[in-house]
Amino acid sequence: MKDVPSDASLISHVLLLRGGYIKGVGSGIYSLLTPAIKIKRKIENIIRDEMEKLGGQEISMPVVLPSNLWERSGRFNTVGKELLRFKDRNEKDMILSMTHEEPVVDLAEYFAKSYTDYPFMLYQIQTKFRDEPRARGGLIRLREFTMKDAYSFHLTEEDLDKYYLRVLEAYHRIFNRLGLPEVVSIKSDSGMMGGNIAHEFMLISDSGEDSVVVCESCDYKANMEVANSLLPDNFNNDSIKACKYEQRDTKRVVIVFIRADLCVNETKLQKLLGREVLEIGSDKIENINDFLNEEKMEERDCEVFCDSSLKKLVKFNSYYDLYKVKDGHSCCICESKLSIKRGIEVGNIFKLGTKYTKAMNVTYKSKNNTLDYALMGCYGIGITRIIASLIEAHHDEFGPIWPKSVSPWQLHICALDFENEMVQSKSLNLYKVLSDKFDVILDDRNLSAGVKFADADLLGVPIRIIVSKKNAGTDLLEIKFRNSSESQNLRLDESIDLIDRFYNG
Amino acid sequence: MKDVPSDASLISHVLLLRGGYIKGVGSGIYSLLTPAIKIKRKIENIIRDEMEKLGGQEISMPVVLPSNLWERSGRFNTVGKELLRFKDRNEKDMILSMTHEEPVVDLAEYFAKSYTDYPFMLYQIQTKFRDEPRARGGLIRLREFTMKDAYSFHLTEEDLDKYYLRVLEAYHRIFNRLGLPEVVSIKSDSGMMGGNIAHEFMLISDSGEDSVVVCESCDYKANMEVANSLLPDNFNNDSIKACKYEQRDTKRVVIVFIRADLCVNETKLQKLLGREVLEIGSDKIENINDFLNEEKMEERDCEVFCDSSLKKLVKFNSYYDLYKVKDGHSCCICESKLSIKRGIEVGNIFKLGTKYTKAMNVTYKSKNNTLDYALMGCYGIGITRIIASLIEAHHDEFGPIWPKSVSPWQLHICALDFENEMVQSKSLNLYKVLSDKFDVILDDRNLSAGVKFADADLLGVPIRIIVSKKNAGTDLLEIKFRNSSESQNLRLDESIDLIDRFYNG
Repeated sequence: MKDVPSDASLISHVLLLRGGYIKGVGSGIYSLLTPAIKIKRKIENIIRDEMEKLGGQEISMPVVLPSNLWERSGRFNTVGKELLRFKDRNEKDMILSMTHEEPVVDLAEYFAKSYTDYPFMLYQIQTKFRDEPRARGGLIRLREFTMKDAYSFHLTEEDLDKYYLRVLEAYHRIFNRLGLPEVVSIKSDSGMMGGNIAHEFMLISDSGEDSVVVCESCDYKANMEVANSLLPDNFNNDSIKACKYEQRDTKRVVIVFIRADLCVNETKLQKLLGREVLEIGSDKIENINDFLNEEKMEERDCEVFCDSSLKKLVKFNSYYDLYKVKDGHSCCICESKLSIKRGIEVGNIFKLGTKYTKAMNVTYKSKNNTLDYALMGCYGIGITRIIASLIEAHHDEFGPIWPKSVSPWQLHICALDFENEMVQSKSLNLYKVLSDKFDVILDDRNLSAGVKFADADLLGVPIRIIVSKKNAGTDLLEIKFRNSSESQNLRLDESIDLIDRFYNG
Repeated sequence: MKDVPSDASLISHVLLLRGGYIKGVGSGIYSLLTPAIKIKRKIENIIRDEMEKLGGQEISMPVVLPSNLWERSGRFNTVGKELLRFKDRNEKDMILSMTHEEPVVDLAEYFAKSYTDYPFMLYQIQTKFRDEPRARGGLIRLREFTMKDAYSFHLTEEDLDKYYLRVLEAYHRIFNRLGLPEVVSIKSDSGMMGGNIAHEFMLISDSGEDSVVVCESCDYKANMEVANSLLPDNFNNDSIKACKYEQRDTKRVVIVFIRADLCVNETKLQKLLGREVLEIGSDKIENINDFLNEEKMEERDCEVFCDSSLKKLVKFNSYYDLYKVKDGHSCCICESKLSIKRGIEVGNIFKLGTKYTKAMNVTYKSKNNTLDYALMGCYGIGITRIIASLIEAHHDEFGPIWPKSVSPWQLHICALDFENEMVQSKSLNLYKVLSDKFDVILDDRNLSAGVKFADADLLGVPIRIIVSKKNAGTDLLEIKFRNSSESQNLRLDESIDLIDRFYNG
């Protein structure tokens, strides 16, 4: 596609459109074309392989669900508009699934009634729909997308902990195998999923939507939402801020005192309160007591917190860690400098504990004949988003450079002057011989060399073979790697050897 | 699952539930569990292989579509409530895709602008949703289901005709490879898809919902909706029926005169009228002219037709073939007896012609620089329904008997008395050795032989190996085929040879 919409700002979005990988159908809704389907299948097979090694059993839960399961867990009413709700022809409430905790707990209720059925892990590779208000960036933030989601069930906390670690390791193996060794795992907030411990898998990339706090020397990495830091001491006592919020449900006012050079981390504040807040505004203040007097807080139904940044500056009953980490703060672990990077979230894992089994009141019979709640973990990978992330991580100005494990094809034969008989017979013969061993695409179109090379760059296959009038009469093959500008001329047996070593060596 | 809902009347529904293949989530909505997923993947791979041989390119179009494409084709308003319509968070009209002509024509508009881009075929394996009023029978009539749908685009009628025949042949190959050689192709009505020529692929089965007219001697087969016959002459002149209908949109009355022993085929009548009808009632009459006088048809806004069955009995201006074929009628081709059978529709193919390219005004530039409409064919296979159809065709009272090409596993090792050390080591060793060559499941549960054999019957794997205290110390394997009651004792090498010949021979 030559004309790329002007709102395509991410390089992956531009290249996916220009290379004919995707076609927009609606906001955040795309058709995937053949090269994207081939990449997607390879990604899925790598993930499937690792899920099977974890003892996972593949299943498939519905895209369209009656609302009753979500009513049972309570989420039908608590989750926002990103959960698309509608009515079927019989006026029954339905939803489009954006995550599948409810139906998987329903499965456990039917098939895992005894402790002897535990532990187990179920996973699926399935279409999801999330009614994002601002879908953007091609395959980065979609409304309809494909996810691998997995759910493990355990009898004990220890077993869940052990399994959670195994999945975390498997995830790093998966991203390595996909050609994304750059992905890091970081502690994160569990958000609407509930539960206590969660990790996000982030591809550090300037085009990311998430902020990640990374220590320059030690292993510390955290999502901005949960990150902590040590504060540098270079601060002027004069500047304190009072940040005002309103609690979304109770409408009560919340005031946070914080150092004027810092911002309140709303996620931390919401966690502390256990409810959502809306920012009203903030004022610089001279003296906290004067401010409290002026505002006559006692007369109002209001909560007041003091951030830990004011510990040495202001006397208060207690301090809370509510500030947002900034570039240049120090690491809590090693005191080295922290920096803020952008990241694309490509996976996440959660220890859910008994949140869903309790909410839906699903029990199993224990060894002692008691009815107990199983503990759960859940584990997601955004498959469609990974296609775009691979481009963000691996491309040049001419197109994607696909890692060999997920390239749509393994070999790209560019037959120049295909109408030439010798070119035609050599390239058709090569296609036949090489297709026995490799996944090959032959460009047999009657187009100029320039167009063919540009399209080959857009398809991003790691190895290219160029058949031209120049070499059609010889027994040499012109071989060029996608990430190099040089080509080499090799005999067929040498070429096969080289290709075989590259893909299977 | 031991307790099967009382409304499960089809054997496939009962066995899918009892064998743990599916779990109901809502009306016509199921989760598929591991054995069903494994069968489904094998079905998909066979279909994919044949689609690639037809030159098909795999793509994936969205489940959720904005309504605009369906508005462009006109179907947003003409298709009934089976098309689920809803609004997203921005109050935009959306639909759940039940077929994908519109987005595939949209793809052609962007990517196939020149005659040099034709012909081509695109296919996908994708979730569909059809809001059936009466979902029933487990995986036979679902609301959410998986289909393979393919769309071919051609420059000429001849090219479409030739390709349509190739697909028809490929479909028979597919059903053969799936272990359903019983599937027959029959002419059918093209229904809401439009176009002129269509074939259905029917598994003849008593549990089918469709009626198929089959000639006992020649090749004639047709869906009841389009079937013709020769009438036996043994008829009493006294009995003629007047069948009254109302046209759904215009409310005009339609009267069909027909022999009293026959019924009106509403599909034929609707085709003749070009609109839907509702039956009002029917009366036996003595004399058509008396009846017409009594009813004073002239005064009413009414249409009158005379069925071809009255040709020799009544004088009328013209006769129309409107009667429903009955068991015992004669074949129009060879005059042998026709019989009516039940069938499950597992696939269908349509020559759409220019219906959708015209409706959406999508053209390509021809060799002569004119803007022309491409011709289309479309080709569906109901993948989820095939899982159930396989059981309807291949089962005994104890469970499914899966064809070897789609069995969830190739070998089922029943380890009886697994707590016995020799049984345990022999069966684990066998599992390891055989897994190198075959897809193996090992039943290592601490349950009785009776339960294990019953469950093995429900899993329906073609070959079973029984390890017990009796044979654990010997070097013989007890091998039993699912469809035989006898077992044989063979050495490991003999066993591998036998299994290999069965699956790959």
